[in-house]
Amino acid sequence: MSGICNTDLELARGYMGFRGTLGHEFVGVIESVAASPIGSLESGGGASTLAVGTRVVGEINAGCGTCALCATGDSRHCPTRTVLGIVGRDGAHADLLRLPPRNLIAVPDGVSDLQAVFVEPLAAALGVLERCPIPAGCRIAIIGDGKLGLLIAMALAPRQPILVGKHPDKLALAPVEGISIDEARRRTSVRSGKLDVVIEASGSADGFALALDLLRPQGTLVLKSTFHGATPVDAARIVVDEISVVGSRCGRFAPALQLLASGSVDLSRLISDVVSLDHAEDAMRDAAKPGVLKILLSR
Amino acid sequence: MSGICNTDLELARGYMGFRGTLGHEFVGVIESVAASPIGSLESGGGASTLAVGTRVVGEINAGCGTCALCATGDSRHCPTRTVLGIVGRDGAHADLLRLPPRNLIAVPDGVSDLQAVFVEPLAAALGVLERCPIPAGCRIAIIGDGKLGLLIAMALAPRQPILVGKHPDKLALAPVEGISIDEARRRTSVRSGKLDVVIEASGSADGFALALDLLRPQGTLVLKSTFHGATPVDAARIVVDEISVVGSRCGRFAPALQLLASGSVDLSRLISDVVSLDHAEDAMRDAAKPGVLKILLSR
Repeated sequence: MSGICNTDLELARGYMGFRGTLGHEFVGVIESVAASPIGSLESGGGASTLAVGTRVVGEINAGCGTCALCATGDSRHCPTRTVLGIVGRDGAHADLLRLPPRNLIAVPDGVSDLQAVFVEPLAAALGVLERCPIPAGCRIAIIGDGKLGLLIAMALAPRQPILVGKHPDKLALAPVEGISIDEARRRTSVRSGKLDVVIEASGSADGFALALDLLRPQGTLVLKSTFHGATPVDAARIVVDEISVVGSRCGRFAPALQLLASGSVDLSRLISDVVSLDHAEDAMRDAAKPGVLKILLSR
Repeated sequence: MSGICNTDLELARGYMGFRGTLGHEFVGVIESVAASPIGSLESGGGASTLAVGTRVVGEINAGCGTCALCATGDSRHCPTRTVLGIVGRDGAHADLLRLPPRNLIAVPDGVSDLQAVFVEPLAAALGVLERCPIPAGCRIAIIGDGKLGLLIAMALAPRQPILVGKHPDKLALAPVEGISIDEARRRTSVRSGKLDVVIEASGSADGFALALDLLRPQGTLVLKSTFHGATPVDAARIVVDEISVVGSRCGRFAPALQLLASGSVDLSRLISDVVSLDHAEDAMRDAAKPGVLKILLSR
């Protein structure tokens, strides 16, 4: 099973020049372990003990295995990495996909396919905390009530974020305070210059500007969404109020899988539809429609 | 004596809507301590022990003295602060200026007026380290060979930054490796994606873009310069490479004064001219000319 991400829609429009099979959110079963020469990086790595038949999810960044970054066990910024369904590696909207064994993590029995398929985006949501620790008592907001914003709101719900968006029906899906942007300025909870951390998940210049406006001096803006081309930014505001703008991309899978296994997050409410892989093209079109959240492709 | 800063030139063009006397870099002598009601915030603060006649420099942010930020002894982000010659308070290009006594710091005899007048911008340069610690061994660059970039290069010279600019004659003033931007891409020391920290001191969109390009994944871009209006920014780069963009405005005066007293920085090479305050308008015009560095106004 694989999930259609907004990044897939962007890639289909030409973002990053990717040619190949899309898809980077998946849960699957190991069909085979390729016979490779001893010492092959593709099959090596010490995590190749998972047996054929194991249900797994997989980290999407496949590093070279030898550079300084990979040596620390973190291939997310390996300069020659491939990325499943995004950079130089065919993705998960397919019958079969291929990843190095060290990228795979077994899924506990208690986590259903419908939950496990969210491990990648949930890991990305939790990745915010790697880039910006959020101590208890921080006043935080998330901007954007699309799939990504909702997922971040669910992942960070214990920290009581405010979710700011334009769609009351979507805002209502997250178990946190939801603020419709039209009335945002009448709500004391999102006054200008008061928040410690704002997570931008709309990918729009308006969202970026609103985030800057909401932050207190020396607050932190976490950029989580894909932006297109040049975004006009009030850089003077960043300087005068000494804001930190922090980019965040991928997260680690293990904490996300643990969170799902704990049962404390229910992501099924984000699923708009489950569609056969045979109808993937229609599903991609549907995924781009307003109001549609996650569409899953099932083999 | 006061120094003409690029911010003065911007303010004169309408930046921040300031009306009043310009000037926020100064060294002076206490002429009088205003008789104020007991408990007055303007005269209070416990640092009012400096006698008439003392040679002083002064922190430019004058806080309310009562908010949570001021209570920590740091008024730089007090929401109702005035700022000498910038926000709601007449500045230093004048015979007399007025600051709360707690803002003043006595200048040691060994520091000349021509050095002490640089305390404010030198403090701002050192303020980079408050926002972005730079451990030994970091590969860092400064973009911009104007007054600000040169000053930062001098302040951070022990950390061996690369200074990237367009003017070989200015680059030669700083006791660090200077890279002319025209040949930048042929120099291995400023290859794309290799630096840990880049300090943007040009205030231009090109400088911002170059800074992003030079940084390694998870590197830090310190914004130090005033930007005008909306700056087009490749926000996707910030997300994908998980860059931190950190604004930096004012620094603390005490470390800057200590650095000057140590004699290890010679800022006199940044002085283009010393002009009588009577000719301040001509001096402002000259300060805006290409190739001119610091112009000082003397009473």
